Amino acid sequence: MRRAKLGSFVMVLTAIAAGIMVCMAFAAGAADEEAAPIFGITIPPGYRDWKLISVAHEEGKLNDLRAILGNEVGIKAYRDGKLPFPEGTIIARLAWKYVASEENNKVFGRNQSFVPGPAPEWYLQFMVKDSRKYAATGGWGFAQFNKEGKPADEALHKSCFPCHEPAKARDFVFTRYAP
Amino acid sequence: MRRAKLGSFVMVLTAIAAGIMVCMAFAAGAADEEAAPIFGITIPPGYRDWKLISVAHEEGKLNDLRAILGNEVGIKAYRDGKLPFPEGTIIARLAWKYVASEENNKVFGRNQSFVPGPAPEWYLQFMVKDSRKYAATGGWGFAQFNKEGKPADEALHKSCFPCHEPAKARDFVFTRYAP
Repeated sequence: MRRAKLGSFVMVLTAIAAGIMVCMAFAAGAADEEAAPIFGITIPPGYRDWKLISVAHEEGKLNDLRAILGNEVGIKAYRDGKLPFPEGTIIARLAWKYVASEENNKVFGRNQSFVPGPAPEWYLQFMVKDSRKYAATGGWGFAQFNKEGKPADEALHKSCFPCHEPAKARDFVFTRYAP
Repeated sequence: MRRAKLGSFVMVLTAIAAGIMVCMAFAAGAADEEAAPIFGITIPPGYRDWKLISVAHEEGKLNDLRAILGNEVGIKAYRDGKLPFPEGTIIARLAWKYVASEENNKVFGRNQSFVPGPAPEWYLQFMVKDSRKYAATGGWGFAQFNKEGKPADEALHKSCFPCHEPAKARDFVFTRYAP
């Protein structure tokens, strides 16, 4: 009887352990997302549905077309002209390689149309406002990810804030709202 | 007595007429929006909050940066890869003059950054899917407005569909979704 009881006990333990493992596997799958170094930021869910702040074209080494989107807090701050940006603001920058559109150019009859091509090395960037957590970097956390959601390394993330410092008068944000 | 009664009657009539005039002025103010010729399209409320389909840069005479947004029906169709676009699809094209960003270029240390400038002549364009109403133009209605919400003239609106015809295989829509 004692042995039988021990047997059931082990079975129950094994079942619990199996359950935990399945659960962890699911969690890892759901996370799937590795946090960016230094700032610990993961890709905010639903960012592709956010409202448009502006667009831009960067030439040179970047050579991209980009869209800048904002979460609700961020868009509201932009539209109200509120500076500094309130806690919880997230600004997303999506970029695509700058490529000529052959099909559009055929219609225009000249080479004039440039559209989003494949994702560049760092497809996604985020700025997250949390004045306490990111006090050392102007109240902003920074994160860069490739198309597969893999974050850039620590060295690259160290370069974010120094580059944004010249925009201190606008709370370290370069992008202006496109009305 | 009779004259006094007539007097009050005229006063009441005058008051009613004044009320109607105020009401009409309000209605005109609320409308404010003149419908585009041929297709009778007015600016859809809330379009600036719509989700992003893509971005582009047109050189040449247009020389703009543009964002293409879609209403819920349109975005869903794009994401599902659904062609032809379902009834009720609206695609919005916002454009801004293509200007160099001096402040960004200072940070980059070279002239590479281009951002939205002032509104061009035709700031806003819409394509509205209504297969019955717009049967003669591929099921699409077209509309162009300036920054003040004033539509372009009939001649310009006549040029929309012929220009979009080469994109027949993609239901007359040039823009592809930027993933």
